[in-house]
Amino acid sequence: MFEFQISATSGAARTGSVSLPHGTVETPVFMPVGTQGTVRALSPGDLKAVGAGMVLANTYHLHLRPGEDVIAQLGGLHRFMAWDRPLLTDSGGFQVFSLEGFRSVTDDGVEFQSHVDGRRRVLTPERATEIQWTLGADVAMAFDHVVPGGADAATARDALERTLKWLERCARRHCELTDGRTLKDSLTVAAGRPDCPTPTDRQTLWPILQGGTHVALREEGLSRILAMDSWTGLAIGGLSVGESKAAMYQVLEALEPRLPAPIPRYLMGVGFPEDLVAAVERGVDLFDCVAPTRNGRNGTAFTPDGPVNIRNATFRTDGRPLDPSCDCETCTTYARGYLRHLFAAEELLGLRLLSLHNVRYLIRLAAEMREAIRRSALAAWAGDWRRRYTQPGIT
Amino acid sequence: MFEFQISATSGAARTGSVSLPHGTVETPVFMPVGTQGTVRALSPGDLKAVGAGMVLANTYHLHLRPGEDVIAQLGGLHRFMAWDRPLLTDSGGFQVFSLEGFRSVTDDGVEFQSHVDGRRRVLTPERATEIQWTLGADVAMAFDHVVPGGADAATARDALERTLKWLERCARRHCELTDGRTLKDSLTVAAGRPDCPTPTDRQTLWPILQGGTHVALREEGLSRILAMDSWTGLAIGGLSVGESKAAMYQVLEALEPRLPAPIPRYLMGVGFPEDLVAAVERGVDLFDCVAPTRNGRNGTAFTPDGPVNIRNATFRTDGRPLDPSCDCETCTTYARGYLRHLFAAEELLGLRLLSLHNVRYLIRLAAEMREAIRRSALAAWAGDWRRRYTQPGIT
Repeated sequence: MFEFQISATSGAARTGSVSLPHGTVETPVFMPVGTQGTVRALSPGDLKAVGAGMVLANTYHLHLRPGEDVIAQLGGLHRFMAWDRPLLTDSGGFQVFSLEGFRSVTDDGVEFQSHVDGRRRVLTPERATEIQWTLGADVAMAFDHVVPGGADAATARDALERTLKWLERCARRHCELTDGRTLKDSLTVAAGRPDCPTPTDRQTLWPILQGGTHVALREEGLSRILAMDSWTGLAIGGLSVGESKAAMYQVLEALEPRLPAPIPRYLMGVGFPEDLVAAVERGVDLFDCVAPTRNGRNGTAFTPDGPVNIRNATFRTDGRPLDPSCDCETCTTYARGYLRHLFAAEELLGLRLLSLHNVRYLIRLAAEMREAIRRSALAAWAGDWRRRYTQPGIT
Repeated sequence: MFEFQISATSGAARTGSVSLPHGTVETPVFMPVGTQGTVRALSPGDLKAVGAGMVLANTYHLHLRPGEDVIAQLGGLHRFMAWDRPLLTDSGGFQVFSLEGFRSVTDDGVEFQSHVDGRRRVLTPERATEIQWTLGADVAMAFDHVVPGGADAATARDALERTLKWLERCARRHCELTDGRTLKDSLTVAAGRPDCPTPTDRQTLWPILQGGTHVALREEGLSRILAMDSWTGLAIGGLSVGESKAAMYQVLEALEPRLPAPIPRYLMGVGFPEDLVAAVERGVDLFDCVAPTRNGRNGTAFTPDGPVNIRNATFRTDGRPLDPSCDCETCTTYARGYLRHLFAAEELLGLRLLSLHNVRYLIRLAAEMREAIRRSALAAWAGDWRRRYTQPGIT
């Protein structure tokens, strides 16, 4: 359980599989985002139809509504959302620091204002861990302090230090929970991490590396995380939060040789096609992003020839599939002219059909990269892919 | 083609099948409404999964957006909306008279204001027939003048006379089109109906009976429609438009003995469960209504114990299916607590799951009635059904 097997490499890129309580996931893998316990506009059946292997849900949102106690009473998150494949829950750190409204950070945790009812709430590393334990996802994430992409070194250092301290507390609490103590047992936190048993079949905890765009901070943070414990996976957070793409790629390139090969690397919040390709080339294994569903709801579809907006009048009588190379229900069933009509007429089916296609697009993109890695030919494949994707005016 | 076979009766109720170009439909049947070429929130795959045999689309809406020319270029309405089973198009009469905005009726037709762009448009019996021919549904409806449920006898008489005159013109134009003349041929209308060939495999035209709640007008209108031609089906329009349920049932009861048994009877715009049962008992074969999808989007679900609103706080931790007796995806997959969460969190999946269930509910209701009719036991079945459906506070 929680094992990562690498089956092939191509440059820094790897393909392999992660074994989790609810199944094995082939990497590189894209995880659709089910923020509130549902991937917006899609059903679990849709997700299986497009080959989704693993889904992300948000601790922050589910804690506020309906509350983890409700989800526990309804059988846990898998059963609640009828998803029997692997699930990962974000810790809530990103949401607390990125959503609108009041927040106050102390070393203990974060006080913030709920976006649902405006009430003040507190999240600490221990609470975030307990909530995720109660939700029961295969992978829980440590509670982290995220800073904007342009944060200076002092701000990034402050957040990194806090995130590292919080990681110890998350790990301790997760260990206690794994060890069989109930939530009602003492929450007292001693210094250092207690001896922790091998993770059970229930859930593993992954640390999140912060440090902004400051490579030295990233490297230091990574060393300290790796010195803390032997993790089953590691996430790179705090990227794709406003910094340039060049800055993001630079951080990934600097980190890659220092990342331990035997554990999967998860780049949080990244999922535009060009970023997926660039990050896989730089050794990343897992991704999540709302881009395919959010863009789909806006009428933007990913295609091998770059993104297209289906609302465009040129599609009015276009009888071709959205993406002729795609095997999804949207592309094998409907003409572009019909999809355009659904958006013009503000019909719900349009939101669903473009979301479905975009998720399928990213899942196929990851599958194509796995195949290219197996052929030790990712660089050539990526060059071809980029030439076509970025060439304007094809569609 | 366009044949109706009755296989069993129980009182005034009948069960049988209608043969149409795109398939055979068992009656009594409920048709989900795909106003703009999509049954809101549902895909053709969903509709097949819940056993929908026939779908209605609206000529008025599709004429205004995207336009029947666009749909023709994309292969006709069936291909456009990816529905390969029977389709019926309403003529646009109901929409012209019921939607907001300017309208002006003359004996020639109706000038009205488009709800899409505010421009003045004209619909005549000939144009409504041509548009429907271009859309290519299995069943086209005659262009009618609908009056509100409370209309007095003079108003209802005026609309009935106009509808009858318009029916002649619709029939003539439909006959010309069926006979192979193109839309560019002369639109000149002579008195009386020309000799018309047997309907081809493409499309049949059904008349709409008006007359408000005035039984004598209804009876006269029916006689005059039946004297005009031998129709393959007949619709009762202008009910469920504001009159009392008692008035609607009275009209149906008065008409039933006078309706020719060998053609199917379609009660337009009716689809609340209690009305479906009452109308089948009074000899009706086909129904359409937005109630299951509109109510579903509002969070109201039909159940054997009456309607329930899933937003109700009592469902917060309710682990039971929405309707334990239902076999739809919603009821076999999700707990009420999850469905309530989807509505509380304003997630699109909730709209879809409740719409899906409600359509399945009406399709199962029609199937149960077919079975009861075959057992010559509809009255007893309906009594049991009503006792349970109207008894409050079970769920």
